[in-house]
Amino acid sequence: MSDAPSPLPRGAALMARLDELARHSDEPGRLTRLYLSPAHRSAARLVAGWMEEAGMSVHMDAVGNVVGRYAGQTADAPALLLGSHIDTVRDAGKYDGNLGVLAAIQAVGELHARGERLPVALEVLAFGDEEGVRFPVTLSGSRAVAGTLDPSVLDAVDADGIRLRDALLAFGGRPDALASARHDPAAVAGYVEIHIEQGPVLESEDLAVGVVTAISGASRFTIDIDGEAGHAGTVPMNLRHDAVAAAAEIVLAVEELAQRTPDLVATVGCFTALPGAVNVIAAGARLTLDIRSPLDAVRRAAIEHLSRRFDAIAARRGVALKMACFYEAPAVACDDGLQARLQRAVERQNIPPRRLPSGAGHDGLAMAALCPVGMLFVRCAGGVSHSPAESITVEDAGTAVAVLLDFLRDYAPPRRPAS
Amino acid sequence: MSDAPSPLPRGAALMARLDELARHSDEPGRLTRLYLSPAHRSAARLVAGWMEEAGMSVHMDAVGNVVGRYAGQTADAPALLLGSHIDTVRDAGKYDGNLGVLAAIQAVGELHARGERLPVALEVLAFGDEEGVRFPVTLSGSRAVAGTLDPSVLDAVDADGIRLRDALLAFGGRPDALASARHDPAAVAGYVEIHIEQGPVLESEDLAVGVVTAISGASRFTIDIDGEAGHAGTVPMNLRHDAVAAAAEIVLAVEELAQRTPDLVATVGCFTALPGAVNVIAAGARLTLDIRSPLDAVRRAAIEHLSRRFDAIAARRGVALKMACFYEAPAVACDDGLQARLQRAVERQNIPPRRLPSGAGHDGLAMAALCPVGMLFVRCAGGVSHSPAESITVEDAGTAVAVLLDFLRDYAPPRRPAS
Repeated sequence: MSDAPSPLPRGAALMARLDELARHSDEPGRLTRLYLSPAHRSAARLVAGWMEEAGMSVHMDAVGNVVGRYAGQTADAPALLLGSHIDTVRDAGKYDGNLGVLAAIQAVGELHARGERLPVALEVLAFGDEEGVRFPVTLSGSRAVAGTLDPSVLDAVDADGIRLRDALLAFGGRPDALASARHDPAAVAGYVEIHIEQGPVLESEDLAVGVVTAISGASRFTIDIDGEAGHAGTVPMNLRHDAVAAAAEIVLAVEELAQRTPDLVATVGCFTALPGAVNVIAAGARLTLDIRSPLDAVRRAAIEHLSRRFDAIAARRGVALKMACFYEAPAVACDDGLQARLQRAVERQNIPPRRLPSGAGHDGLAMAALCPVGMLFVRCAGGVSHSPAESITVEDAGTAVAVLLDFLRDYAPPRRPAS
Repeated sequence: MSDAPSPLPRGAALMARLDELARHSDEPGRLTRLYLSPAHRSAARLVAGWMEEAGMSVHMDAVGNVVGRYAGQTADAPALLLGSHIDTVRDAGKYDGNLGVLAAIQAVGELHARGERLPVALEVLAFGDEEGVRFPVTLSGSRAVAGTLDPSVLDAVDADGIRLRDALLAFGGRPDALASARHDPAAVAGYVEIHIEQGPVLESEDLAVGVVTAISGASRFTIDIDGEAGHAGTVPMNLRHDAVAAAAEIVLAVEELAQRTPDLVATVGCFTALPGAVNVIAAGARLTLDIRSPLDAVRRAAIEHLSRRFDAIAARRGVALKMACFYEAPAVACDDGLQARLQRAVERQNIPPRRLPSGAGHDGLAMAALCPVGMLFVRCAGGVSHSPAESITVEDAGTAVAVLLDFLRDYAPPRRPAS
């Protein structure tokens, strides 16, 4: 492991491993690494080898996570958990998830190379199922560690009809011992994850890293508008009940509210016109609405405001409107103490501190049920993720490792009452 | 034929024939009568019989139109052409087209029953292809009569691979004698068509009939917007280039202009979001725009105005926009003299005169190349057409025949210079 203070050699070493790991794919020519797949198995083996090289004792847990432990100064030291996931979406980039795992291994490797032991043990977790692509379940790895995984997920079936239970058995996991993956909250000090931002904020502010304040809560809706079909040439404007025009007004109402509300993003991603013909005034329109905020109160107030506004638009235009929620997840705040420590580590790298919410979900969502959670975002080009175009710089990779190392060396576990 | 002055018996007779004609369909259980199909053939035979009953001499022309002639007071009297089309869309209503043909036959039949001859000959035309559903051509019947039918339409092929030429031959038409269907402009005084409004104006003003001022010109465009895809949770509002939001602004700009511009209707009927996922800021959007006006200058000014406005929206939002015209047809004005005569006939039925443009296309579009054109619209329920829900009242049907009869009796052919 490198001992260099400059981010470049550190970053280069990390990038080389990210490249090597990215060769483990279930599809030729592009990166696809699904939970419990052959590529997952070979990637897990590679990661386990790197963990051992970094001085960790390694095992695979019941649900297929790779767990490496680097002992602390004392045998009873609580563990600080580090990591992210090594599964990917289809046709993925190299950094989403994998960066967090390999950056943590590299930081531990540097401690190991210098013989440093900390007041806490360090555990690097390479979760196996964050993306939820293969089975209709998600965060299985981190939920198992947090002790919140519902065993009914074992009955989930993939597109080929394979049950999760059977895939897990074949992978070497232990579906009947899921509880063994659970960590004892009393032995865990916290969970810290490095992840690419998957958004453009750091890039737009020319910052290598940022400290995450919370993983945003999200609500998703379908909005169905029933207007009145009509001939595009024969119905005068004042006699129309045009569903597309009503839907357009809703799109702009959503945008307007989100633009003037701090800590809120809102998106209409789907817009379907019915019947959708050039010479027919649309009888119907179907939209989706995705609303997110790190603050649940902000999100809930926005939903209420928009719901009233949509009703007013529909009433004025003489169309019917139905808004139905099909997904809701509350926000998970990152731990104040971990945020403060991460911020100090960032500042010591002479980087202006920037706190920002995570609009995307992460393993931290599940880990928050177990322990305090902290996250460090790394700038990614154009905010692009879930794409082979995902890109980070060598220098930023090195900076992320440097911040993590500094954070770890500075870290003092919270005192806990004697039990 | 009835001689009654009240619209009810007249209307009842007409409605009974419309019902009978509607039984001639290419599909069981619904009305579909395509050009040169078996149902077209049997409908043409039925119509020809009714024409003979009404005192007309009947033939089928080279392109499959049924033509019935009721001689005038003198052998060299010019002909006033009446009629509409007897083909339908799929799953059609009973009145679109058919009403105009059968109302004309009924009016001639009343003249015949009373032994009345007019200064003009009357020719009732039952055009065979106005809807353009079977082959990718339209107005073939009226274009052949007007002498503007391009013989290359004979090479058009239907969904079963059958060429129009072969279908026409099998129908009893004469593809190699298309020119024989052409009428001599010197022998034609004008063309008058009764048609359902296909719009809600007359109904909303409680009027049985209205006089058409023009068949609107129309322009159709595709509008492609290229924005920037992004994660719905991670891209702040101020860094977005959301194609759906840009498209929504365009929809409302179109609506706003059309609402404040007399003699203009404009419609966005198609709206597609790309990729169209709940958690993805849309990278692209594709719209269609349909703009119509009885005044070409109004339509052209609107297109120019909107094009500038779209560019401004795209520039402000940092998205690319491409607007491409894929259809354009100029307006066809109805003849002032025919409008005035039709209006007087309407007023003599004690109906307040209402002039209105036709936003839909009609055989008159083609006939305008041959002679002055006039049209009388009949109120239809909800403005609905191209649907089994198409509906008119018995009373309005009778009123339409009464207006036409009165118009015919009052009609004096324009003087023409001796040749």
